[in-house]
Amino acid sequence: MTGQIQGNLLLAQGGGPTAVISASVRGVIEEAKKHCCIRGIYGAKNGMDGLLNEDFIDLRKESEKDIKNLAFTPAAALGSCRRRLTEEDYPCVLQVLKKYNIKYFFYNGGNDSMDTCNKIASLAADQDIKVIGIPKTIDNDLKFTDHSPGFGSAARYAAICTMELYKDVESLPIHVCVMELMGRNAGWLTAAASMAKINENDGPHLVYLPERPFVEKEFLNDVKMWHEKVGGVLVVASEGIKDAKGNPIAESGIIDGFGHKVPGGVAQHLSNLVISKLGIKSRSEKPGLLGRCSIPMQSCLDREEAIKVGNFAVLSAVKGKTGCMVAIKRVSNDPYESEMGLVPLKKVANVEKKLPDKYINKRGNGIELSYKEYCLPLLGEPLPEYVSLRKTPLEKI
Amino acid sequence: MTGQIQGNLLLAQGGGPTAVISASVRGVIEEAKKHCCIRGIYGAKNGMDGLLNEDFIDLRKESEKDIKNLAFTPAAALGSCRRRLTEEDYPCVLQVLKKYNIKYFFYNGGNDSMDTCNKIASLAADQDIKVIGIPKTIDNDLKFTDHSPGFGSAARYAAICTMELYKDVESLPIHVCVMELMGRNAGWLTAAASMAKINENDGPHLVYLPERPFVEKEFLNDVKMWHEKVGGVLVVASEGIKDAKGNPIAESGIIDGFGHKVPGGVAQHLSNLVISKLGIKSRSEKPGLLGRCSIPMQSCLDREEAIKVGNFAVLSAVKGKTGCMVAIKRVSNDPYESEMGLVPLKKVANVEKKLPDKYINKRGNGIELSYKEYCLPLLGEPLPEYVSLRKTPLEKI
Repeated sequence: MTGQIQGNLLLAQGGGPTAVISASVRGVIEEAKKHCCIRGIYGAKNGMDGLLNEDFIDLRKESEKDIKNLAFTPAAALGSCRRRLTEEDYPCVLQVLKKYNIKYFFYNGGNDSMDTCNKIASLAADQDIKVIGIPKTIDNDLKFTDHSPGFGSAARYAAICTMELYKDVESLPIHVCVMELMGRNAGWLTAAASMAKINENDGPHLVYLPERPFVEKEFLNDVKMWHEKVGGVLVVASEGIKDAKGNPIAESGIIDGFGHKVPGGVAQHLSNLVISKLGIKSRSEKPGLLGRCSIPMQSCLDREEAIKVGNFAVLSAVKGKTGCMVAIKRVSNDPYESEMGLVPLKKVANVEKKLPDKYINKRGNGIELSYKEYCLPLLGEPLPEYVSLRKTPLEKI
Repeated sequence: MTGQIQGNLLLAQGGGPTAVISASVRGVIEEAKKHCCIRGIYGAKNGMDGLLNEDFIDLRKESEKDIKNLAFTPAAALGSCRRRLTEEDYPCVLQVLKKYNIKYFFYNGGNDSMDTCNKIASLAADQDIKVIGIPKTIDNDLKFTDHSPGFGSAARYAAICTMELYKDVESLPIHVCVMELMGRNAGWLTAAASMAKINENDGPHLVYLPERPFVEKEFLNDVKMWHEKVGGVLVVASEGIKDAKGNPIAESGIIDGFGHKVPGGVAQHLSNLVISKLGIKSRSEKPGLLGRCSIPMQSCLDREEAIKVGNFAVLSAVKGKTGCMVAIKRVSNDPYESEMGLVPLKKVANVEKKLPDKYINKRGNGIELSYKEYCLPLLGEPLPEYVSLRKTPLEKI
């Protein structure tokens, strides 16, 4: 293609990792190697920290095998950071990009990172530097994309763990079990636990999301009712649930170095409520970060899309696009098909996509069946089918 | 074979489930079907509860496909219980066995269950009822067997989760991460987290076991040292760690319905210490029960052995053996080979096998390399190999 800008490529990663964030690194590198206008292929070590410190990795020196296997490796291969750039940082970023003749800059991250990416794109616009955002988030809270790479795998993890935990609790129904899942402001991921429910009485029996106020009294009533009905109750709650006033329901009582209250464990708090207020045995589980880095529970679809998103970012930049984030458009649901597109970073930056009302039941303690249509295809391979024996009773003598 | 006792078979499961406990159910059923002296093949619903209530399942009515897939299904397929039999219960057990013409009784469980099984075997001895214990425990604390079915899968889970969690923490080194693993009295499972360590500076950096007193001051010093060295520190601790006086280090402050103090979350407690005493960001993860019911992280060796243990129990009983538990003998380590044997229940009942001193480092905060030789073969397939990029630095301009 004529008129393509010759120069180097820089890729950086920001925010929390996912199980497929490095699949996007593979996607960028493999596509970049196909375009001779791209000379150096660089990675910034630990996101914006590496960029500002000019701490770069030469990605052409990595083996093809390692690059391929990035798709099956959890966490951010280049390293990530949570640094929020100040107004003074931005001119420095631009200076570094120019100094290293970066003509293609990609930032792989979530909400905050897309805001950063947008600002860099604006500054770089008249410098012939192409800037593209590559989405990732297990929270699935990026707008203008059907879903974000990373969500499908985390959702698959949530669904399988809920299934397995319910099998365990059902087989030894001696306690109410509360599991906490990630997603501080958006309930997409917690809602995926409901994919584990096959029959009416299966767990999860109660699901609590940050989109609805948590009412302790209702929770206790509901747990009591389910306990009488099924014995082993399974509750799934988002780490971010809040009361009607918007306060986190669990505080650790700990103050961190900046004087901020440290949030406590939601699952342990709910479990303690069940023990102390209902006198029912209870325990809590909190897989936490494990839910965003599991390769055995990676979604194959998520992995493939994460690679494609990286490919498409490079393709778009080479075609002269800039100031955009790659977005996934769902073309068909059965069979699932998607295509890649672009959305202006300006629109995406700092907008949060919560779980829509239509997916949350009236009482705010469960997920509507319609969510299955949205979520299930993103989990990739069909969920495992675990045996429930027929248990034909033997006639008593 | 002549002289074989004709009658029915009863299988019951007790205690906490594992990822392969139902593989042993398959083993029992498949072997039982080969012996015409075995008429009915029954399961007791929810262990001793089902036995005493004569709540039996006709296992000959289950499909072959379901029985096969039990090996890939978590939790106790027949249901389990935590009921401890009283002295008055035992004669009732015997009465039920006689009433239903049970000539072959199998109890699939851990320490407590083997004690129960031993007592039933003694009572049944002069009734021509053969009683065999089938081991299972993720804690690996049953003596006189190289290891117990269930341990390998839980250990594989611990190792992979630790690996993945460390990849995550290493790639975004903003906190000290503390993961809690099961095993209240024995550290076998927590020690398996160390299988994730490849290089000296890899996580887990610190491992705490119930076999050694936990000293808060040393813990804080060690975390500080590692934090200065590597940034993202990974600590793994058993749920059962205690202080020098033998008190659990974390209390929830909650009193249950029986007036007992409810233990708190160890990981959250340690994490809070790091925040409040060292001023370092920290978070905690507690997969809890998830670690004993994961099929994606099941060990293929563990699954195969769990089936064989079930087979061997039936074979032994048909040959006239009774009052024994099936034990696994490690014949060779490389390649790993094992064979099945029997050990008297009298010896096994109520004896706890802790992690031997030789596997624990001097300071009581880590695992010796020699443990790898014991543990690694039990994890089944090789552990996944995750990519660490070479990260060849680009020369600064």
